Amino acid sequence: MANPSRQAVNFAAPRGFVTAFKADCKETFFPDDPFHEMKHEKPLNKLKKTIQYFIPLFEWLPNYNLRLFRYDLLAGITITSLAIPQGISYAKLASIPPIYGLYSSFIPPFVYSIFGSSKHLAVGTVAACSLLLSETVGAKASPQDDPTLYLHLIFTATFFTGIFQTALGFLRLGILVDFLSHSTITGFMGGTAIIICLQQLKGMFGLIHFTTHTDVVSVLGAVFRHRNEWRWESAVVGIIFLAFLQFTRYLRQKRPKLFWVSAIAPMVVVVVGCLFAFFAHAEKHGIQIVGELKKGLNPPSIQYLNFDPQYLPVTVRAGLITGLIAMAEGIAIGRSFAIMKSEQTDGNKEMIAFGFMNIIGSFTSCYLTTGPFSKTAVNFNAGCRTAMSNVVMGFCMMLTLLFLAPLFRYTPLVALSAIIMSAMLGLINYDEMIHLFKVDKFDFVICMAAFLGVSFISMDVGLMLSVGLALLRALLYVARPAACKLGKIPNSSLYRDTEQYPGSTPIQGVLVLQLGSPIYFANSTYIRERILRYIKGEQGVSDSKTDIIEHLLLDLSGVSSIDMTGIETFLELRRILDSKGIKLSIVNPRIEVLEKMTLAKFTDAIGKESFYLSIEDAVQNCRFSLHSSKTTMEEA
Amino acid sequence: MANPSRQAVNFAAPRGFVTAFKADCKETFFPDDPFHEMKHEKPLNKLKKTIQYFIPLFEWLPNYNLRLFRYDLLAGITITSLAIPQGISYAKLASIPPIYGLYSSFIPPFVYSIFGSSKHLAVGTVAACSLLLSETVGAKASPQDDPTLYLHLIFTATFFTGIFQTALGFLRLGILVDFLSHSTITGFMGGTAIIICLQQLKGMFGLIHFTTHTDVVSVLGAVFRHRNEWRWESAVVGIIFLAFLQFTRYLRQKRPKLFWVSAIAPMVVVVVGCLFAFFAHAEKHGIQIVGELKKGLNPPSIQYLNFDPQYLPVTVRAGLITGLIAMAEGIAIGRSFAIMKSEQTDGNKEMIAFGFMNIIGSFTSCYLTTGPFSKTAVNFNAGCRTAMSNVVMGFCMMLTLLFLAPLFRYTPLVALSAIIMSAMLGLINYDEMIHLFKVDKFDFVICMAAFLGVSFISMDVGLMLSVGLALLRALLYVARPAACKLGKIPNSSLYRDTEQYPGSTPIQGVLVLQLGSPIYFANSTYIRERILRYIKGEQGVSDSKTDIIEHLLLDLSGVSSIDMTGIETFLELRRILDSKGIKLSIVNPRIEVLEKMTLAKFTDAIGKESFYLSIEDAVQNCRFSLHSSKTTMEEA
Repeated sequence: MANPSRQAVNFAAPRGFVTAFKADCKETFFPDDPFHEMKHEKPLNKLKKTIQYFIPLFEWLPNYNLRLFRYDLLAGITITSLAIPQGISYAKLASIPPIYGLYSSFIPPFVYSIFGSSKHLAVGTVAACSLLLSETVGAKASPQDDPTLYLHLIFTATFFTGIFQTALGFLRLGILVDFLSHSTITGFMGGTAIIICLQQLKGMFGLIHFTTHTDVVSVLGAVFRHRNEWRWESAVVGIIFLAFLQFTRYLRQKRPKLFWVSAIAPMVVVVVGCLFAFFAHAEKHGIQIVGELKKGLNPPSIQYLNFDPQYLPVTVRAGLITGLIAMAEGIAIGRSFAIMKSEQTDGNKEMIAFGFMNIIGSFTSCYLTTGPFSKTAVNFNAGCRTAMSNVVMGFCMMLTLLFLAPLFRYTPLVALSAIIMSAMLGLINYDEMIHLFKVDKFDFVICMAAFLGVSFISMDVGLMLSVGLALLRALLYVARPAACKLGKIPNSSLYRDTEQYPGSTPIQGVLVLQLGSPIYFANSTYIRERILRYIKGEQGVSDSKTDIIEHLLLDLSGVSSIDMTGIETFLELRRILDSKGIKLSIVNPRIEVLEKMTLAKFTDAIGKESFYLSIEDAVQNCRFSLHSSKTTMEEA
Repeated sequence: MANPSRQAVNFAAPRGFVTAFKADCKETFFPDDPFHEMKHEKPLNKLKKTIQYFIPLFEWLPNYNLRLFRYDLLAGITITSLAIPQGISYAKLASIPPIYGLYSSFIPPFVYSIFGSSKHLAVGTVAACSLLLSETVGAKASPQDDPTLYLHLIFTATFFTGIFQTALGFLRLGILVDFLSHSTITGFMGGTAIIICLQQLKGMFGLIHFTTHTDVVSVLGAVFRHRNEWRWESAVVGIIFLAFLQFTRYLRQKRPKLFWVSAIAPMVVVVVGCLFAFFAHAEKHGIQIVGELKKGLNPPSIQYLNFDPQYLPVTVRAGLITGLIAMAEGIAIGRSFAIMKSEQTDGNKEMIAFGFMNIIGSFTSCYLTTGPFSKTAVNFNAGCRTAMSNVVMGFCMMLTLLFLAPLFRYTPLVALSAIIMSAMLGLINYDEMIHLFKVDKFDFVICMAAFLGVSFISMDVGLMLSVGLALLRALLYVARPAACKLGKIPNSSLYRDTEQYPGSTPIQGVLVLQLGSPIYFANSTYIRERILRYIKGEQGVSDSKTDIIEHLLLDLSGVSSIDMTGIETFLELRRILDSKGIKLSIVNPRIEVLEKMTLAKFTDAIGKESFYLSIEDAVQNCRFSLHSSKTTMEEA
């Protein structure tokens, strides 16, 4: 019966469990195969390479030279001028004294330059996480009523962030970050930008009373409820600053070479603001200033870490959520700049670097740091070559803390608000949202869930809502895999989707279906129903007795794995088909699928002769058997 | 440059959003396409078919005849003989008075016979859900201290189960049941059987004091702590009954025709037990009996439904969990018997039928009912033809309640324990567990999580643990899709996995990769890394300059969908490949993927000439361009 010339399916014995398990683990946790290159090295070289792998500093430092340093020096100074105003502003956003924002730009850059694998990432605090920290921790300890306790809890949350990030890095669970989709991040950033901007209305209008909630409704409510506190002087100054900052941004867009104007603009605003406040005695005219900034380097804070069980749930929770977001931002940004230079960053190494940065930070009066978008972009544009630019920033920050800090005491709060607003307005990515709407409506819904959730409920609810929807979609993909009916493309041996290629023709008496995705518990019932529906559909179309389906070919080329429920379903399917007089054949099962089928004795059940390597082979064979069965009938 | 004879990829304009959305919704919620056959009918016929679709009774009743009734009568009487002992026993398991177990076999069968779509399903209470209800509701209201409140909460939970099941059915969310995998159910059943058996030690040893926990440790602890209460008389009677029941089971396995012996065995045990207890005054010899059973039909219980906010969380939770499990058992069992007869049941219709059954049940003093395995198997073996056997059982039950109920007051508790134990021992599927271990280790872990979780922690924790692991696996499948390198099989135009078919040969200068599964946020980073690793691997193998990769072909036949993050990843990949001087081509994208690529302008970015319909086409074309580039080099 069988066509002797056909290509054979390889029924090799299944791999052992240990082999398969090791291969799976490797694919799951070491997709980048870091030790691949070291296999054939000498032991000493291997040790050297391993150290270089874990501490990237040793990789680039030996080749470092003065020419590279010139670039890094310039970039380092540029990002310092951004780090000072951002540090002060974001510390205000986190409801902690501004000096801690400066502290956070001193120690962490040094740590990152040792362990970090990205060449362009600039270390610093980020707006979204600062606000999220204040929102989460503030719910348990008020920053106004008990500022010391609040500050200590912030350090503790930072400590947990560090532990969490390091652990994920060592466990090679960079995979977690993969679950924050592009759409989620776009929506989350946009929503955060909106609420942070609205928060700044407090500073802009010089309000004294405000709400602790972050959602749009509460914030706007608070702004309008305290109309009696509005100070026009403050608003006027704020709008002037904001207009200046937005103008420099506009300039950068038009002339990318002038990026440095927008990079130092925040520093200009702070300096001008200080001078103005100092000479105009702004404080007396309703323009609030930052207030005292102590001279001196970071005091140790390890003794302040608070592990009181009463506060543990809130600090751990704050640590985990902000850690995940900070990591996602840092890794995504490092990666996107690396791609521009055709380099690669290693997500797991980055996590370890961020983790060490935050652990050591929490011991030295720093709060949560990562690789913020704005600073990294400036660093990249300023021409940094290695992580040395972070070292330069660290040194500049040290000098600032030692000598210049007190000078910033006159910084008007309204200047900080203008800086934050300007930074945030750049994070709302309208174009991307429109693009999402055009290309993929579900992605748009995921994005909007994050955007509206963050704006109208709270940051963590918005984030979880969006991630939940994205996971739901992933599970739906999995539960409803696309199957399609194939037809033969004329004058070729190709079989393609009849819907996509209307020119393709079906084969008499043979139904060819292509299945995609893994087949397992969540979709096996669906797949069975779908196949039976195809058969019903075929038989509905052709009422004549001669056109009845006698063979069902399942093309499994796209099925990457199968589980027990899936195999049971195939067995059931075969039983149903048998009762209808239809013969089931399998085309091109992949190695994992064939192994399982062999182990579960499915291959024996349907017979090895029902497995084909290509659709063409299978169809030829079916035609042969169709033909012979017809002949038999005619003879009878 | 391009080979003119090649088959073209169909770049039809993408379908409109509404069309695609409608198609997706239909696949997700109506995979069985129930209204397919009605399209071409007349309006009156359409109405008739719609009514028949929603109320299956109208489908089979018109063709019902006396011949069918003879079969159903016999089957109905047989399952009644099982329903009485099981009803009493499982009501004890749910810690409610035994009479409610009998009530629950009177009203629900009538409801099911109207709405149910399975011909073999027999309605009744189930052991696992009975115990789960008592465990969940018992945590809030003690069945000993406040039996009335407890009973009312059980009715309320049943009501919520009904509402939940009906809602899922109408929303066509049968998909939820798909997430309980075969392995989870095997493990859960096994674990439940173990703890229910252990619970019966109370009845076996005639204990008075016992624990309310269900885990193995607490139960064994309670049994041995109360050694002073052990009654040997009780144990001896129990063991005799159990031995008899197990013998009839054994008989059925050996001689399937004698199934009726094991079917009526429980009834025999009850009758013998009653007679023995009555004549031997067993009560005085330490053998407890059931006690008074009131004559009469179900009293209404709608006025007892308790929506007190204090108890709402526990009743809703109990309703949801037991509802889901009961549904999974009922649907799975109806389906597996339908398959034996090559018929089909409709999961969504079944859910609606179960839902109505439980809502009406909760109004008429019934507690949770579904289609239990043992009863349905007996019904099937007794030769039932339609749901009429349930009607017969309902009538028999009515007669029992009206006239015979008081006779069962002498039933010894130990007889009930023996009946339950015997039923449960049959549910531990050792063979299946061993089979799972051999074929799929991860499925085995999922199964063991349910088994051990239920045995040692609690039923809902065990279930959730197992479902959680199964979902995690689904997400891992999704996050780490298998990619493989293809080589050409000699003397054919087929390209297959080089690992699976070691005879296949790679093509000089061209790397062909096959991707499986949908490509989207959760796996796009991995896919990029994996592709780059393949390229690195290739270039590592061949050091000679001539063997360098110049073309990367991605076979997307198995990729059923893609999202925005996936497309961004392809754009990134192209940028990286460009910098390495490698040309990217796409082979056979499916309709959904090509639509998204067109909308996102990816097709324009890499050029329509880089899309091929088959690998062979693409390779021919690459060879051509490789050849011409070499010629140019040589000329230069």
